[in-house]
Amino acid sequence: MVDVTASTLQVAIEIFATSAFALSGLVAGARKKLDAFGVFVVTGVAAFGGGTLRDVLLDRRPFFWVDHANWIWLMLCVCMLAMLFMRNKHIQLTERAILIPDALGLGLYAALGTQIALQQQLPVIVCTLMGVMTAVFGGVLRDIFCDEIPKAFSDYQPYAVIAFLGGLLVCLLNQLNLASWLCIFIPAALMTILRILAIYFEWRLPHWKTESN
Amino acid sequence: MVDVTASTLQVAIEIFATSAFALSGLVAGARKKLDAFGVFVVTGVAAFGGGTLRDVLLDRRPFFWVDHANWIWLMLCVCMLAMLFMRNKHIQLTERAILIPDALGLGLYAALGTQIALQQQLPVIVCTLMGVMTAVFGGVLRDIFCDEIPKAFSDYQPYAVIAFLGGLLVCLLNQLNLASWLCIFIPAALMTILRILAIYFEWRLPHWKTESN
Amino acid sequence: MVDVTASTLQVAIEIFATSAFALSGLVAGARKKLDAFGVFVVTGVAAFGGGTLRDVLLDRRPFFWVDHANWIWLMLCVCMLAMLFMRNKHIQLTERAILIPDALGLGLYAALGTQIALQQQLPVIVCTLMGVMTAVFGGVLRDIFCDEIPKAFSDYQPYAVIAFLGGLLVCLLNQLNLASWLCIFIPAALMTILRILAIYFEWRLPHWKTESN
Repeated sequence: MVDVTASTLQVAIEIFATSAFALSGLVAGARKKLDAFGVFVVTGVAAFGGGTLRDVLLDRRPFFWVDHANWIWLMLCVCMLAMLFMRNKHIQLTERAILIPDALGLGLYAALGTQIALQQQLPVIVCTLMGVMTAVFGGVLRDIFCDEIPKAFSDYQPYAVIAFLGGLLVCLLNQLNLASWLCIFIPAALMTILRILAIYFEWRLPHWKTESN
Repeated sequence: MVDVTASTLQVAIEIFATSAFALSGLVAGARKKLDAFGVFVVTGVAAFGGGTLRDVLLDRRPFFWVDHANWIWLMLCVCMLAMLFMRNKHIQLTERAILIPDALGLGLYAALGTQIALQQQLPVIVCTLMGVMTAVFGGVLRDIFCDEIPKAFSDYQPYAVIAFLGGLLVCLLNQLNLASWLCIFIPAALMTILRILAIYFEWRLPHWKTESN
Repeated sequence: MVDVTASTLQVAIEIFATSAFALSGLVAGARKKLDAFGVFVVTGVAAFGGGTLRDVLLDRRPFFWVDHANWIWLMLCVCMLAMLFMRNKHIQLTERAILIPDALGLGLYAALGTQIALQQQLPVIVCTLMGVMTAVFGGVLRDIFCDEIPKAFSDYQPYAVIAFLGGLLVCLLNQLNLASWLCIFIPAALMTILRILAIYFEWRLPHWKTESN
C-alpha cells in the first residue's frame, strides 16, 4: 500500500486487522439476520469501505481489493461458512475476540491512510482526516447499510478521536523527516495502545450539556 | 454502453429494464409519501445508481444518464404524472407489472456491468462484483434513501446471487473467446429465466442457524 | 470556485452560506446527541457534502475543503465549543437564525454548481441537477448519517424545486451570453428571494392523491 519495504510483520498485522474489520461486518450482518448477499456486502464494506472511499476522494486506483482479489474469494467463503455454522454464542465470542485486532486495525489503517494522503502534498488536516476515514468509515458504511446510526458517531468512545491524534502525529513525524516506516509504526503502535487502554478503563468522550429532549 | 452493434433488440430491452428499475423507485417513493423531489431522486437512483457507482469505482466517464440526458426529462415527466394520477391500486398493479421487466433488467445490467469491467482487465471476482453492483445497487441506494434496510440484503430472495452466477458465466464465456454480444446475451437470458423461476417457485436463500435474539 | 472576479461580496456570501449549512449539521447532530466525532462529521458533510459529491461525479479536484483547509480547523473549533456551551434554547435559536443564510446558500450553491457543470459542456438537465445536488445533497447526506429520511425528500417544502428552476435560469442566461457573474448572481438572488417567500407564506408542494396506507 505504501512505499516501504513490506515487512512480514506489516503484512501479518494488515491481514490480522482487515480480518477484524471484516468480522465486525459479519457480526453486524448476523445480528440483523441479513441474507447471504447482505452479509457479504456488509462484511466487505466494513473491511474495505474506508480505504475505498479515501481512494475515490484522492482519485487513486487500483483499489486494495482489486489488487488483492483473492481476499474477496476468502471473504466469500468465510461468509458462507458463518451462515452455516455460526450460533449466537459465536457472535458474542467473535465480538470479544476482535477487540484487540480491531485496535491494531485502527492504528495501522489511520497511520497508513494519513501517510498515503501526505504523498499527495495535501494540507495536514486533510491528510489526518483521510487517515481517520480509512480507519473509521468502513464501520460507518456498515452501520448505514444496516439502517442504524453509525456507532462511531454515537457511542462516545474515543475511537475516531484516537485516529485523529495519531494522524496528526504521522504528519509531525514526516515533518521531522523520519523514515516513512517509522512515521507509520510509531503512531500506529501508540494508537493501538491508547485504544486498548480506552477499552480497558472505559474512557468516554465528554457529553452534551443540553438536557435530553 | 459496450462495443457491440447496438441491435434494436438490445436497446428495446435496455429501455424496458431501466423503466422497470425506475418504476421500482417511483413505487418506493409513493409508499413513503415522499414529495416531488424525493420521488424524482429515488426514481433516478433506482434506475441509474448502480451503473453510476460502478462507473465512479472504475473511473469511467461520461455516465449513462449524461450521454442520454433525455431520459432524465422523461423520468421527470413520469414522476410528475404519477404524483397527480397515481392511486393505491396503481401501486400494487405497478409492483406486479414490473416483475418481468425487472428480471430482464437484472440479467442485462449484470451481464453488461461485468463485460464493461472485463474491458479494464480486472480480476474475475472484481468484474463479477461490478456486474452485481450494476444490477443491484440502484435498489440498495433507493432503500437507503428511504431509510430502510436494503431489500437486496434482507429478503432472502435469490437476486444478487443470480447476478453473481451470471457474472461468473460472462467471465467464462469471454475466456472461451465468444463474440462479445454472445457473452452478454447468453448469461443475461439465463439470469432472467432463473429470476423468473425463482419468483414463480418462491425459492429462498438458506437462513441463519442462529436462534432469533 | 469559478472563473469570476471573486468580489468581496461573493466571498462574504459564501462564508455566510457555508456557515449556515454547517450549523444545520451541528444542530442535527445535537438533536441526535451524537458524540464529538459524529457532530464533526455531520457538520462537515452538511457544509461540504453536496459540492464534494458533485466534484466526484464531475471528476474535479481539488475539493473546496482541500483548497481551504483552514475552514476545517474552524469547523472543528466551533463543534468543540458547541458541545461545551450549547443548550436546548440555543438549538432552537440557531434553527431560526440560519433560515436566511440558508436561503442565501441555496441560491448561491445551486447557481455556482450549475455554472461549474456548464464549463464541462454537459446537457442542460445535467448541469441543472449538478446545481441542485450542490445545494441540497449536503443536507441529504446529513440526514442519512443521522438515520432519517432526508428532509429534502419528504417535507413538501419548495427547496430543491427552487434550486431546479434557478439552475435552468443559469443555463438560459449562459445561452444569452451574459457575463458569467451575472449568470450566477441573478438566479442566486431570485432563488434566495423565492425561498424566503416560500418560508414566509408557508408554500407547500402538491401532495400525493393516494389515500394514506
